[in-house]
Amino acid sequence: MVRQARSEATRRKIIESAVDLINEIGYPAAGLGDIIERAELTKGALYYHFESKEALATAIIEEGSESLVGAFRGAVRSGSPGMEDVIHGSFVMTDVLGTDTVARAGARLLRTFGSFNPAAKRTLQLFVDELTGRLKAATVDGDLRDGLDPESTAGHVVAAMLGAELLSSALADGADLRARFARNWELLLPAIITDESLGYYREFLARQAARQQPPSA
Amino acid sequence: MVRQARSEATRRKIIESAVDLINEIGYPAAGLGDIIERAELTKGALYYHFESKEALATAIIEEGSESLVGAFRGAVRSGSPGMEDVIHGSFVMTDVLGTDTVARAGARLLRTFGSFNPAAKRTLQLFVDELTGRLKAATVDGDLRDGLDPESTAGHVVAAMLGAELLSSALADGADLRARFARNWELLLPAIITDESLGYYREFLARQAARQQPPSA
Repeated sequence: MVRQARSEATRRKIIESAVDLINEIGYPAAGLGDIIERAELTKGALYYHFESKEALATAIIEEGSESLVGAFRGAVRSGSPGMEDVIHGSFVMTDVLGTDTVARAGARLLRTFGSFNPAAKRTLQLFVDELTGRLKAATVDGDLRDGLDPESTAGHVVAAMLGAELLSSALADGADLRARFARNWELLLPAIITDESLGYYREFLARQAARQQPPSA
Repeated sequence: MVRQARSEATRRKIIESAVDLINEIGYPAAGLGDIIERAELTKGALYYHFESKEALATAIIEEGSESLVGAFRGAVRSGSPGMEDVIHGSFVMTDVLGTDTVARAGARLLRTFGSFNPAAKRTLQLFVDELTGRLKAATVDGDLRDGLDPESTAGHVVAAMLGAELLSSALADGADLRARFARNWELLLPAIITDESLGYYREFLARQAARQQPPSA
């Protein structure tokens, strides 16, 4: 029991050291040697838990993806309109990226690996599926414009979010991610929301965007 | 002179081998050893041209970026409306990604490195600046909706393109990139184009999207 707890603590230490290095210098530059040094562990301890650098990356993608998708699902309120869930959920995900370093490193790894890592691929598909589900509800609610396909609309929204994460991270060290998401939605709302619902969702967006951002961890 | 030509041929061989491996298995998995083996060269030859794996990545980002930005600039016709240039330019860039393997690997490296490589950062900023320039022209032309800021609109368009590249590459091996770009534009046009110009640009988009895609290299 004690041994198991110690082993779990070691695994945690490795993940956290890798996460910090990925966020500080990027995945390509973060060598296994640097990760071991940061974690103050031996090569043996690392290889006991992860057979390769990519196995470690996969664990970070999986844990980060769980936080992000979990946050999105947590933002869905039973009985609330699909479109509210989508907008609110996207801001909740931004907040997770701002405060949860594993999720932030996971997002970087998603775009580093793309198709070349099954966990990254699965996560990207999951983002599209989750959003498609809520946009289907928005269609039923009568909030989505006629003729819009929920799945390809979800593809656009996810693409815009992924691209915003990359641009924000590259050009503003991630500091303007929430503002980028808000501007994305401002631009998109009239394209996807029916005229009748547009006024309401503009107000909803303004309130979401103005919410106090939680302090970063 | 002969020596210089031979040296340039070696450099080319290294870049092409790296590009192929990046496109086949991804940058993290493409080791310098694999690149040397593929190029049938020695470690010394590689290090003569590139001091590190990242230096090689930088060369690919720079060459790929030159092709992509060059294609966009080439799509700008003197006297043609800014919005035509933006839509046409985005499809021309898709075609370059489909046919030019260096540009494709360069795009992957852009999202792998983001802020951690100066060339990647510069390229992302350049994409935003180029689009901003043409969207400013679109404002003067009266095609852009009142109150839209050209720079933040460019930020959204570039984000949507970068995200589409990642999703297409991860979920469809890049095969549906052109279709994703077309759907992005279909969704965005009513959000950014004035009511008077919307009909024309819908027709323009349909014609651009229907153009025969050049055969991939």
